[in-house]
Amino acid sequence: MNIQEIIAKKRDEKELTKEEINFFINEYTHGNIADYQASALIMAIYLNGMSKEETLNLTTAMANSGDILDLSELGVVVDKHSTGGVGDKVTLILMPVIASLGVPVAKMSGRGLGYTGGTIDKLESIPGYMVNISEEEFIQNVKKIGISLIGQTMNLAPADKKIYALRDATSTTESIPLIASSIMSKKIASGANKIVLDVTYGRGAFMKTKEKAKKLADEMVEIGKLAGRETVTILTPMEEPLGRNIGNTLEVIEAVEALKGNIQDDVKEVILDLGSNMLKLAGKGNDLEENKRKMLENIQNRKALEKFKELVQNQGGDISYIEDTNKFEKAKYILPVILDKKIEEITRQRETNKETTKQEVIVKQLKAEEIGKLSVFLGGGRIGKEDKIDPAVGIVLNKKIGDKINKGDIVAYIHANDKDKAEEAVRRLKEIYVLA
Amino acid sequence: MNIQEIIAKKRDEKELTKEEINFFINEYTHGNIADYQASALIMAIYLNGMSKEETLNLTTAMANSGDILDLSELGVVVDKHSTGGVGDKVTLILMPVIASLGVPVAKMSGRGLGYTGGTIDKLESIPGYMVNISEEEFIQNVKKIGISLIGQTMNLAPADKKIYALRDATSTTESIPLIASSIMSKKIASGANKIVLDVTYGRGAFMKTKEKAKKLADEMVEIGKLAGRETVTILTPMEEPLGRNIGNTLEVIEAVEALKGNIQDDVKEVILDLGSNMLKLAGKGNDLEENKRKMLENIQNRKALEKFKELVQNQGGDISYIEDTNKFEKAKYILPVILDKKIEEITRQRETNKETTKQEVIVKQLKAEEIGKLSVFLGGGRIGKEDKIDPAVGIVLNKKIGDKINKGDIVAYIHANDKDKAEEAVRRLKEIYVLA
Repeated sequence: MNIQEIIAKKRDEKELTKEEINFFINEYTHGNIADYQASALIMAIYLNGMSKEETLNLTTAMANSGDILDLSELGVVVDKHSTGGVGDKVTLILMPVIASLGVPVAKMSGRGLGYTGGTIDKLESIPGYMVNISEEEFIQNVKKIGISLIGQTMNLAPADKKIYALRDATSTTESIPLIASSIMSKKIASGANKIVLDVTYGRGAFMKTKEKAKKLADEMVEIGKLAGRETVTILTPMEEPLGRNIGNTLEVIEAVEALKGNIQDDVKEVILDLGSNMLKLAGKGNDLEENKRKMLENIQNRKALEKFKELVQNQGGDISYIEDTNKFEKAKYILPVILDKKIEEITRQRETNKETTKQEVIVKQLKAEEIGKLSVFLGGGRIGKEDKIDPAVGIVLNKKIGDKINKGDIVAYIHANDKDKAEEAVRRLKEIYVLA
Repeated sequence: MNIQEIIAKKRDEKELTKEEINFFINEYTHGNIADYQASALIMAIYLNGMSKEETLNLTTAMANSGDILDLSELGVVVDKHSTGGVGDKVTLILMPVIASLGVPVAKMSGRGLGYTGGTIDKLESIPGYMVNISEEEFIQNVKKIGISLIGQTMNLAPADKKIYALRDATSTTESIPLIASSIMSKKIASGANKIVLDVTYGRGAFMKTKEKAKKLADEMVEIGKLAGRETVTILTPMEEPLGRNIGNTLEVIEAVEALKGNIQDDVKEVILDLGSNMLKLAGKGNDLEENKRKMLENIQNRKALEKFKELVQNQGGDISYIEDTNKFEKAKYILPVILDKKIEEITRQRETNKETTKQEVIVKQLKAEEIGKLSVFLGGGRIGKEDKIDPAVGIVLNKKIGDKINKGDIVAYIHANDKDKAEEAVRRLKEIYVLA
């Protein structure tokens, strides 16, 4: 067996055997196959696809390329994954709610890369919170208080890490077998036996249409089944950012507010959809509506917020920041964004076109991807792996798609630590808001 | 412009602009684009193809990536290229014939790599022959005696060199736009204004069918036209090796014999086809049959052999080896190959099947590629670029496809410098001969 033959097979639209896929993943992980050979194979996979069986074999091979976390002593462990979004603070809110309802939460999250943020960066913006703890401490924490959220300290699915970096550099990210195997290999390696997946679609997501998201979701459910991990998916539109705040500290603040009951509608919907399914998978009740009711109850009675505080304290974080979010250090420049010129322009155009309608001006488009890039520009995200991030900066959106806007309304705030960047960000955000 | 966008365009079956192709070639040549990005793009080109214009732009960009040899002071210079074969000693015979008819020959050739031999390795087996001379000397030699054959001393089409190596390692060799641009970029950079191409097809060639070879040929003619280099192609089947001898010294000996008039039919046909077209392109006569006659005449009257001796002497070679080829050092072990067992088997089978036909046993198949690999095994070729080759070893074929064989016939000789390898090669060659 050699890599040229394997590449040639996929190039010629033939199905790779399990042995061939294992050979590729093992040899590539160990550096015996060059990056340029792997990238040729990945482009061939992108263009010629993979059968369900090939995708399963690829997933298993990648999951087995490093450590596999053994969480069996915790019983049923439900994990959750989102295919990524801007302003996605779901884990911070959902996991304490679920844990407060008696489902063990042992979750490893990633850091942000590119225009999507990462849960681990957000948690680190809480002073003292330790994201890097040992496997034993991690399991002990779950046993003690029912929840632990940490970074990927172990060597989980290293093959996936290498391939992921390659895909980013070679325009081969948006491929269903490659996305499905990447997500599922990490989930399998991180020890969960039940998995709930949030597959996002739309302009701000990998999958641009609902149909493609459905196909990806089905593929992952299938892999989960074949790998013995019960998997449920929900599909979430991702045209605009989720919730109001984008940026690390800003998102923690929004999450704390949500756990106090001040939760944005779009965030609430995703939390309830995912959580009701997680509770079902964990054997806490088959009635999804009833499950949602229980979740809302534990938000109302502050049990979820208490669980979050327990989590923060248990991992070394200072809970006084959670008790009073005003303690978080603010960005130096907080500039309002007002769209009067755009509103005037639309009014003028309507007069020119002699439109009689007195309809109000609304937000028509607010691209998640663009907002995510703006957050990176402010220093809230990283382009390269080694970049430092600034926890305080970000964007607060007062107006989102469908909202009416009047002259003088502050549609958003830019939080920045650099004056020039702050002003540039205001200009850019004005461009990003599309009105009608 | 960035490489990810260029890859994504070709991945999505879109046409690349001239600027995008230039960007790729320039940045890749200068090391600003990684091999793994180039290989992803090349796989996308392999699978999604290229338009005629894209192929022309790729060719021009690769030709311009390094030095361009200026042969304008020599007037009309006709170059010749073969897409590669086993036992291909055409250049050694054809070029002296052409030069003896007054057409300037200024040709750079390559070394052998893989199972195909290289003209430069063959010339170096003549004691003293210098393949690495300066550009000025090269041109001076042509002016003085009308012919010079050298190695690629200049930095010709370095982009092609990088891409060629990558294609070999990533199973993307058999692609018409990639082969066409590779060949034509080198020809353009090496200064010829008229080009004759021998496009081989069949089991031993890149192009497995005559149709594909025709397509490649047409593409190259088109590129030549657009690049202002008149190009003529001939198609040559390559099922079995060309001529009798495979190996470096052995092929020089066969070439000298051919120049004395003892020329194998298949070699003669290729030489006359290519040569008659070269003479036509050089303005030496439009009647191809008449051109062939002139060529045969200059073989008959030894003018071509004299030109070859002049070439060898002029480049420091010892012409006493050409005058008496017995002077060449022979391999230590020269073992005959006899196929009596195979013949007996066929006879037995015919009796079992009660075939009444008394037809004689013939050679049905003699795969060029397998013989080429056998020559490499004996030390006559190289697998890696830095491998040393043994000029004396090789294979002499007495019987080729269609030839009748009787018991006791010596169908071939193995020339080897290692006893074990010699015996192993005899066994392998017996396998390679397919009888019927």
